[in-house]
Amino acid sequence: MIIILDAMGGDNAPLEVIKGAAMAASEYDVSLRLVGPTDVIKECAEENGIYLDESKIEIIDAPDVITMEDPPLSVRKKKNSSMTVSLNLLAGGGGDAMVSAGNTGALYAGASLIVMRIKGFRKAAIATVFPFKNPTLLLDSGANTVVSPENLCQFALMGSVYMEKVLEIDRPRVGLLNNGTEANKGTELLVETHALLSRYERINFVGNVEARAVPFGACDVLVTDGFTGNIFLKLTEGLGEMLFKRIKAMYKKNFLSMLSAAVIKKEFKAMKKEFDASEYGGAPILGISKPVIKTHGSSDALEIKNAVRQAVNYVKSGVTLELAESIGAAVPSIEVVHESEETEPLIEYADDPATDETDDGGNEQSI
Amino acid sequence: MIIILDAMGGDNAPLEVIKGAAMAASEYDVSLRLVGPTDVIKECAEENGIYLDESKIEIIDAPDVITMEDPPLSVRKKKNSSMTVSLNLLAGGGGDAMVSAGNTGALYAGASLIVMRIKGFRKAAIATVFPFKNPTLLLDSGANTVVSPENLCQFALMGSVYMEKVLEIDRPRVGLLNNGTEANKGTELLVETHALLSRYERINFVGNVEARAVPFGACDVLVTDGFTGNIFLKLTEGLGEMLFKRIKAMYKKNFLSMLSAAVIKKEFKAMKKEFDASEYGGAPILGISKPVIKTHGSSDALEIKNAVRQAVNYVKSGVTLELAESIGAAVPSIEVVHESEETEPLIEYADDPATDETDDGGNEQSI
Repeated sequence: MIIILDAMGGDNAPLEVIKGAAMAASEYDVSLRLVGPTDVIKECAEENGIYLDESKIEIIDAPDVITMEDPPLSVRKKKNSSMTVSLNLLAGGGGDAMVSAGNTGALYAGASLIVMRIKGFRKAAIATVFPFKNPTLLLDSGANTVVSPENLCQFALMGSVYMEKVLEIDRPRVGLLNNGTEANKGTELLVETHALLSRYERINFVGNVEARAVPFGACDVLVTDGFTGNIFLKLTEGLGEMLFKRIKAMYKKNFLSMLSAAVIKKEFKAMKKEFDASEYGGAPILGISKPVIKTHGSSDALEIKNAVRQAVNYVKSGVTLELAESIGAAVPSIEVVHESEETEPLIEYADDPATDETDDGGNEQSI
Repeated sequence: MIIILDAMGGDNAPLEVIKGAAMAASEYDVSLRLVGPTDVIKECAEENGIYLDESKIEIIDAPDVITMEDPPLSVRKKKNSSMTVSLNLLAGGGGDAMVSAGNTGALYAGASLIVMRIKGFRKAAIATVFPFKNPTLLLDSGANTVVSPENLCQFALMGSVYMEKVLEIDRPRVGLLNNGTEANKGTELLVETHALLSRYERINFVGNVEARAVPFGACDVLVTDGFTGNIFLKLTEGLGEMLFKRIKAMYKKNFLSMLSAAVIKKEFKAMKKEFDASEYGGAPILGISKPVIKTHGSSDALEIKNAVRQAVNYVKSGVTLELAESIGAAVPSIEVVHESEETEPLIEYADDPATDETDDGGNEQSI
């Protein structure tokens, strides 16, 4: 199996990505394609005494880089960037899955435009697993600000299949994030979606879920639009950061408190993880015809290594095939619009999902 | 000054409300009107040995009760309920402010329909203060699922004036909750609102704020729609609950950990408050022509007493008058539609804000 690694993606690239690649190559039965400026990668490996086993790690040259500030469509403009070259490599069969810690918007747009969605899926979604009482998959975590009831039903399907196949959860409970549990709660969009999901046999729908209940394990898959999902994700991260800064400060107060800190250090570390979505590795972009995983921008070598293992499991799990087969049983499918790469709405979309309500701009393909 | 108390509102009514009333009457220079079934109130006070000083506490008879499950419009149907009688008392000048721990939807609808909004305000909003790095007022916390840019600008004004007058914060920083800080982020609604707020001189607008930054004190007033606000409020509560249950369990593990728990107990209590929106008392329903405060459904006597003090400060602060005067300088005002109590949209609205995008169903009055 070949995993493609965007060597220049993330705040700690290329060093941590290269380190992670070397670790993954030595630990797992996998080949890696490290994509980036050959000279930079080789120099960085040399300077830091990292051994890149040529029998398992191939460097693919890509001189250009997409920064965290670049707009989503830079993935099409910067054709020689490590991310675009990686995506084209994956689309062309030069690898089984791709991992990047780079620009999320660009990666999402590129996955949809270059690797393309599975036929029948109208939008791809970024999925994040929270290590709450039980692992809880949140989607969409930020890609699609504007969605339709059909989109949300497809997110429910994507999330269910991912939790079944990759986290091996039987009949994952799907909840719809809402401001109350009754079926008539929330916006018209949510009322319609609730009605559709209630009739959706492939889905184990447990109804509307309030935000308060999610950390206590109210569902395995939490379905919402990309705006609300983004608020949910970032508020959890923010409250976690705030809290653990406070705890640290607290323990530095005096000798006794430092002592007590030592006593329960391990427990705190375990607890901290409940706020850390990177616990379960990176965020898969679901609905794409091949596995694309976005790892945290601040990923270190260990997180990169874990993301590679996650990519391997993702490929082995057969999620993509299962999704392609399940979509037939989904809510009434709609004729797919194949947009040329140059049409306005498409270009507008990638910069702002809100401008396109029917299709996330990428094309689809049968697999 | 007379504060009206809904004796039957909340999970711990009437006992805790009566207790809280007795405490407030003895501590503050204020008269109270305790509204509920006279016999029930007197019996409860007697059984529990609570002294109700007749010189400061008057019981107003209201035989009926609005339960937590009743729909918002029950406030109009149950004319003899403690909540409806309280609201009519306030509207008729029988008190300066009202406090209830009862059904939020009913209280919000009743405040708008019976006490009425301040002239010029198109919707009232439920405001919640979070004790983050600095007190942060979130509005709307759950009343209006669907809002317009004008509504959000008026929420910004309400929140600013409340923070200036009641929490004495100079030029409170107003942030718009969004999925990114750039002006073009989020839905069309948010892009328009950002443009309006940027031109709104009365408001100290600091731009879009990401959820991650809020706990670190990114703004003093956080403006959002009632759906997103509800998710924000309940996720904060849920994560707080989860965390402190975990911490408790952690410390029960062994003797050493129990010892260390004792050491930092006070600090933990202080930290716990950062997740507890009731720290700053109840949630004022802003935009209403007289102070109406919703306290937590689980309020105990102490919280009821604090809410009475908060009501006194609210009345003294002159927030309502300042709002009535400031609204002139607000975004272009719109002709007010005075709906009769029987019109369909109004009735639909109170059950589901989403069905009415222009007016929250209540009437307005000059003050």
